Amino acid sequence: MEERLKKQLAFSLEIDKEKNIFRQTHLSGHGRNENDAEHAWHMAIMAYLLREYANEPVDIGRVMLMCLIHDIVEIDAGDTYAYDEEGLKTQKEREERAKERIFSLLPEDQKKELSALFDEFEASESAESRYAHALDNLQPLILNDSNQGSDWKEHDVTAEKVYGRQRKTRLGSEALYRISDEILQKHIREGNLRAD
Amino acid sequence: MEERLKKQLAFSLEIDKEKNIFRQTHLSGHGRNENDAEHAWHMAIMAYLLREYANEPVDIGRVMLMCLIHDIVEIDAGDTYAYDEEGLKTQKEREERAKERIFSLLPEDQKKELSALFDEFEASESAESRYAHALDNLQPLILNDSNQGSDWKEHDVTAEKVYGRQRKTRLGSEALYRISDEILQKHIREGNLRAD
Repeated sequence: MEERLKKQLAFSLEIDKEKNIFRQTHLSGHGRNENDAEHAWHMAIMAYLLREYANEPVDIGRVMLMCLIHDIVEIDAGDTYAYDEEGLKTQKEREERAKERIFSLLPEDQKKELSALFDEFEASESAESRYAHALDNLQPLILNDSNQGSDWKEHDVTAEKVYGRQRKTRLGSEALYRISDEILQKHIREGNLRAD
Repeated sequence: MEERLKKQLAFSLEIDKEKNIFRQTHLSGHGRNENDAEHAWHMAIMAYLLREYANEPVDIGRVMLMCLIHDIVEIDAGDTYAYDEEGLKTQKEREERAKERIFSLLPEDQKKELSALFDEFEASESAESRYAHALDNLQPLILNDSNQGSDWKEHDVTAEKVYGRQRKTRLGSEALYRISDEILQKHIREGNLRAD
């Protein structure tokens, strides 16, 4: 087998481990915790279907790829819950080490390409990455909405914290922010999300 | 909420169920069975990384989307194991009914678009669908390879049947067929895949 293909397949096998990285979000129907691979798959399809709501024109192929790979570093770094303040302090460093190890399995050109795409997502500056972040928020929101906000209740998350995170949604899509706001207001009214 | 976005979100929530449709393939490290959403995520990334090996030039964004949605019908129709002869007889009919129900949750234009993309995958006639089928075969092959062929052993699958299925890989990618053949020959030699 030629060296290049061997590296590409080694990376392909390595990322299988992302299916074992579990998130705090639960599947609809009060199911089990969702894993990163499932989350990325779901986000990428939603990104495609909802692209008409992006604030700026986006290259949807790049958005989808960004969605698919944005959590690969968690194979080493683990999932950091959006409202875990201690974990968030060391997240960047853990993810940088993981990025170097995992993407180094690829041929050099693809290592550079995927690392750059991951960095672009993290920086949240390009139109594609801002829109991808909107989906990174909206996808767990629709699951949590379908489960009567049980993920917020379990972690005693406040509306203020959730709205803090939704700022990123707004930068990518005003329309998806509006619908997220509608959903959150409903859960505040119903007592599923603490207002204070 | 406007009607169009409401439909798009209803569909987005419905496809969450694909995470509960389990395949015969096991995760690397002799892990649990893989589900359809994980398989689709894995295939889509591999499709991107290995696109240089497609027999014909492909629109890689369309290939990725095709990979991501190709198993959605299994939410209703269930997974039909590639070597389940009885199940294969009714698969088409079950999947057609599922396609109609699930894609009908979307706005009409997106229903048409995704149904057509699903049909294109199934027909295996376009360059994109032929290449996507190569990945549909290669992705479980690398997992099974990493597990010493345990999925074949469990179902007592013969090399003849596996090679029958690999014909589709060859139509999409001669290079990926060659590496699949190398892997299969190794497992035949090691007694993990029955030659007769």
